[in-house]
Amino acid sequence: MRVVVPFDATDPKSRLAPVLDGDERRAFADAMLRDVLDAVRAAGHTPEVVATASVNVDAPVTVDERPLTPCVNAVLDAAREPVAVVMADLALATSGTLARLFATDGDVVLVPGRGGGTNAFVARHDGFRVDYHGTSFLDHREAAADAGADVTVVDSYRLSTDVDDPDDLAEVLLHADGRAARWLRDAGFRLSTTGGRVAATRE
Amino acid sequence: MRVVVPFDATDPKSRLAPVLDGDERRAFADAMLRDVLDAVRAAGHTPEVVATASVNVDAPVTVDERPLTPCVNAVLDAAREPVAVVMADLALATSGTLARLFATDGDVVLVPGRGGGTNAFVARHDGFRVDYHGTSFLDHREAAADAGADVTVVDSYRLSTDVDDPDDLAEVLLHADGRAARWLRDAGFRLSTTGGRVAATRE
Repeated sequence: MRVVVPFDATDPKSRLAPVLDGDERRAFADAMLRDVLDAVRAAGHTPEVVATASVNVDAPVTVDERPLTPCVNAVLDAAREPVAVVMADLALATSGTLARLFATDGDVVLVPGRGGGTNAFVARHDGFRVDYHGTSFLDHREAAADAGADVTVVDSYRLSTDVDDPDDLAEVLLHADGRAARWLRDAGFRLSTTGGRVAATRE
Repeated sequence: MRVVVPFDATDPKSRLAPVLDGDERRAFADAMLRDVLDAVRAAGHTPEVVATASVNVDAPVTVDERPLTPCVNAVLDAAREPVAVVMADLALATSGTLARLFATDGDVVLVPGRGGGTNAFVARHDGFRVDYHGTSFLDHREAAADAGADVTVVDSYRLSTDVDDPDDLAEVLLHADGRAARWLRDAGFRLSTTGGRVAATRE
């Protein structure tokens, strides 16, 4: 199985702009990418990165400047074997949760992201293509059905938690212990509780 | 195994006040409670409700006006067998995900909630007590360790998604099809996409 990790190396994690400046967002996104690559390797696979610009990581990198959808569909067009696509911002991913994804049977195996996105999938059917716009999880379920592919959904909090918004940073501090969590701690982020809600706030 | 579902029948889901008035919050919370009770039954167990006031559901109800923590600890104090405690706002819970929780081995089995809470647990160790204040997931892990109990964490997006904030309503529309999802649709809520983010907005 090919395992592909798409990465926005140009302007990553723009929705974190309220709490991280441009250089910080790039460094934090890079830490999350490395965590995901580590977890894929620990799950017994060799990850490949498809990035919008060159990035220095311990994995083969293909540069493709196009948006995510055509970029991933080009991978699917060229596929001669099952393909897994795992987003680079799954900072809570572990080898165990990814192994569970890779081992799940189905023509198309989907992992929803919070907010209706698609955080990861495995495609074992050559008619499946992606469209990440909008509620892509629902669209991908429909696209798979339209292609005559059966769909399985993996129920994993770790894989469904992508790190997009400032609110998501608390999940990294709560549940992760890799580079991304260390980066946040080194940058001064700590868990704090106000009004019964937990957040990652900067000291 | 006893399966206890605590329920705030007095002022439920106060953080939904920006989008639902008091009567609506009570009706929506009631729909979620019934969905959870159905899922527990479909998982092969007989749920009991512990509520702050009388509530008319198809399950035995004990009224305990105290806050959640003493209320659940009273259940644990009295327990002579394993106890599962499942929050009443897990609108995405299914019989399958609950069966996975109930079947998970461990003295203490925890399900984190988004934001560091504890959405469900199974206690098979008589030294474990709860404290739902703050980051209760981390506190419960520590409390279990202090009691000499081994801890297992269940990785389930459905069980980790409690419905507290307006943002959470989109998850109900995306992933649930029970009373709570129908209630939201009947009340005019629909999925909408703005700026790449999916939300439940009212027509």
